[in-house]
Amino acid sequence: MSDTIKYLLPESEIPKDWYNLIADLPEPPPAVLHPGTHEPVGPDDLAPLFPMSLIMQEVSGERYLEIPEPVRDIYKQWRPSPMFRARRLEKALDTPAKIYYKYEGVSPAGSHKPNTAVPQAFYNAEAGIKKITTETGAGQWGSSMAFAGAFFDIEVQVYMVKVSYQQKPYRRALMESFGANCYASPSDRTQTGRAILEQDPDSPGSLGIAISEAVEVAAQNDDTKYALGSVLNHVLLHQTVIGQEAIKQMEMADDYPDIVIGCAGGGSNFAGIAFPFLGAQLRGGQSVRAIAVEPAACPSMTRGQYAYDFGDTGNLTPLTKMHTLGSSFVPPGFHAGGLRYHGMSPLVSHAKELGLLEAVAYHQTPCFEASVTFARSEGIIPAPETSHAVKGAIEEAMRCKREGKAETILFNLSGHGHFDMAAYTEYFSGKLEDKNYDEQKLSDALSRLPQVAAS
Amino acid sequence: MSDTIKYLLPESEIPKDWYNLIADLPEPPPAVLHPGTHEPVGPDDLAPLFPMSLIMQEVSGERYLEIPEPVRDIYKQWRPSPMFRARRLEKALDTPAKIYYKYEGVSPAGSHKPNTAVPQAFYNAEAGIKKITTETGAGQWGSSMAFAGAFFDIEVQVYMVKVSYQQKPYRRALMESFGANCYASPSDRTQTGRAILEQDPDSPGSLGIAISEAVEVAAQNDDTKYALGSVLNHVLLHQTVIGQEAIKQMEMADDYPDIVIGCAGGGSNFAGIAFPFLGAQLRGGQSVRAIAVEPAACPSMTRGQYAYDFGDTGNLTPLTKMHTLGSSFVPPGFHAGGLRYHGMSPLVSHAKELGLLEAVAYHQTPCFEASVTFARSEGIIPAPETSHAVKGAIEEAMRCKREGKAETILFNLSGHGHFDMAAYTEYFSGKLEDKNYDEQKLSDALSRLPQVAAS
Repeated sequence: MSDTIKYLLPESEIPKDWYNLIADLPEPPPAVLHPGTHEPVGPDDLAPLFPMSLIMQEVSGERYLEIPEPVRDIYKQWRPSPMFRARRLEKALDTPAKIYYKYEGVSPAGSHKPNTAVPQAFYNAEAGIKKITTETGAGQWGSSMAFAGAFFDIEVQVYMVKVSYQQKPYRRALMESFGANCYASPSDRTQTGRAILEQDPDSPGSLGIAISEAVEVAAQNDDTKYALGSVLNHVLLHQTVIGQEAIKQMEMADDYPDIVIGCAGGGSNFAGIAFPFLGAQLRGGQSVRAIAVEPAACPSMTRGQYAYDFGDTGNLTPLTKMHTLGSSFVPPGFHAGGLRYHGMSPLVSHAKELGLLEAVAYHQTPCFEASVTFARSEGIIPAPETSHAVKGAIEEAMRCKREGKAETILFNLSGHGHFDMAAYTEYFSGKLEDKNYDEQKLSDALSRLPQVAAS
Repeated sequence: MSDTIKYLLPESEIPKDWYNLIADLPEPPPAVLHPGTHEPVGPDDLAPLFPMSLIMQEVSGERYLEIPEPVRDIYKQWRPSPMFRARRLEKALDTPAKIYYKYEGVSPAGSHKPNTAVPQAFYNAEAGIKKITTETGAGQWGSSMAFAGAFFDIEVQVYMVKVSYQQKPYRRALMESFGANCYASPSDRTQTGRAILEQDPDSPGSLGIAISEAVEVAAQNDDTKYALGSVLNHVLLHQTVIGQEAIKQMEMADDYPDIVIGCAGGGSNFAGIAFPFLGAQLRGGQSVRAIAVEPAACPSMTRGQYAYDFGDTGNLTPLTKMHTLGSSFVPPGFHAGGLRYHGMSPLVSHAKELGLLEAVAYHQTPCFEASVTFARSEGIIPAPETSHAVKGAIEEAMRCKREGKAETILFNLSGHGHFDMAAYTEYFSGKLEDKNYDEQKLSDALSRLPQVAAS
């Protein structure tokens, strides 16, 4: 039997629609609330930040939403993405489990993020928008938005979490190569940024802070909209091309996953691979265990509360019900910058409350260890974020070994680590530490959650 | 018309044979000579460095050599590689030319190099070899050899040119991720390295020096062989999978190139894409202009002599007739480290002497400029080496525009620049300089070419 087994779909099999899990859920997710009135927000409330076409996707209950042809055209550059059977990894682990991975690192920006950056740029361009602001953690999202902006002549302004900005200077160079501007956040360019710098000039930043800065700039400028790389319904929606393709590729493999795994920061790559499988299950198909793997230093689902909270640190966004560590929580500066978010996608959170998925958390050192095992077996070096999914898959494969079970595991290899080699250098030098959050600061942040009657 | 046009071959179309240009040449290349006797070397002379199966490929006159099944199996991980029509670049340049690029950056190491690293590891493993030494410039080759070594349980020891080792620390981390060891060259681990450090403790290193170090270690250890990432016939042979696939993809496009372009350091990626087209031409098919693009700071074909010379600085290798700047020539430390070689593949040199190809040279700043134009149009950021091919293609496309000709241009996008963003950072900061070699040092190096009667 061959050791390299790649499942490639023809270009004609790029999904024609995005899949919306909401249509198949037994109950809809809780309403999004206005931060002042605590009344449900309507589409118009979001109009300063997003073009109406994206807002309508955000609130849609339709099962399938058509992918515009110009978006599918750009998807063709790297989609359908390959799915591999990880035969060499299975052998290295000596497990009876069958391990598959869907590889999203084949996109030009190196991760799943362009799946949503491209439609977001498209809908903004269609609405005549010339400038987009956004935040980025590790830089995967910022460089994807920069890439997509270049295709639609949109100027992209990226607020990059300061600790990542310092750790990953080359992500910035990538964004600049695509023509975007990149600023370390907190910056002195916004009111939010200046207020935080005043309190803590050495703030490492966080996704929550960077979101506030980007939202503030968009809200204050008529020609400018805001783009978010995860969390929101429409972002998760766009990512479902991953799982839809994977379902067809599992058919090619004449197999079906018992377990579907993704890492989870804001939740979009996890949802992207898992939701189409969960939808099939909800419509009477085969059940899967969907496992979201989060960092132990920023564990919104495993240690947070399910409550209404702000999406950003500056408390500029509407309130959504989600698993949260509190919007004032600033996680320590570990390497998986894309997972350093205080909250979790409201839709992923809701699905978890409905019992549709599990969450686990791991520290970064065992995740890097898992990544190196993977790289030496499969030849691909995962991004630090993605290493959490790799760790989750290896853990399940080792459980299968202990229990003598030949289960089928599918995970989302959401991005490569080419811009994160400083982290690997630190890991190899033995200097990498497992950073913990401060328990007191977590309980302080949770105690400051907004009081919402409906919650 | 769609702007994203990707030509993908099915897995069954991965070539089954490597193509050997020698079989179609009107005359064979000049003999390889023993450095002491100046007599032609036989296979046994090379046995301390290479397994016999690779030596037999090196001296083969057969037109096709079968690709072993385990090698094709690993090729499947990223092959067949895609060919794209660069529609957005054509529009940005407003050229009537049709531009296609074959993208080899889809390999796990990010370039064409695994095409030969994998068979070299395979043949060494087959011969029972447990350890391979090699050199690397920018690190593309070293990380590819590390990647291939991991698949065949071979320990890989990489001597990396010091200036690149310092500029590209993350390439080293990638090699270590695959389990290899990496040393800055010149090192104190070899006689050659120590001698050079004694003369010049600040030597930036060169491919010629790194080759000497790797060869020395292999020659002195029975369980160790040496692997070279370019220059040699068998390396060029392995790279012909690129051009063979491209011929089929041009058929899919119902087109045929008037011009085929590759960057050239040792010559293997250029040969990989160009030789199958030149072979078709020699067998009576359509003519192509094959253009090798080299760096103006290390211009072996445009400024060197066609003469017998050593392949390395320590003068440990046999003598081959090639375009050379002299084995003692040390080029300035520019960013395209993979092109910093004093010589040129003897087979590419011979083909040039036969009038089968052209060579041009560009400085690094216009090459980076071309790369950024390409990245903003096509979404892929080229390696600094590859940027020379991009520059060559854009130059030809602009000539077509001036002359109003709709010629078809195909170039080899041999690798991405994910590990070279420090160079882009320097370019964007305006600090990048076009380094020139020292004319006096070049003429000194040429004056020290070995005196060979046959030459």
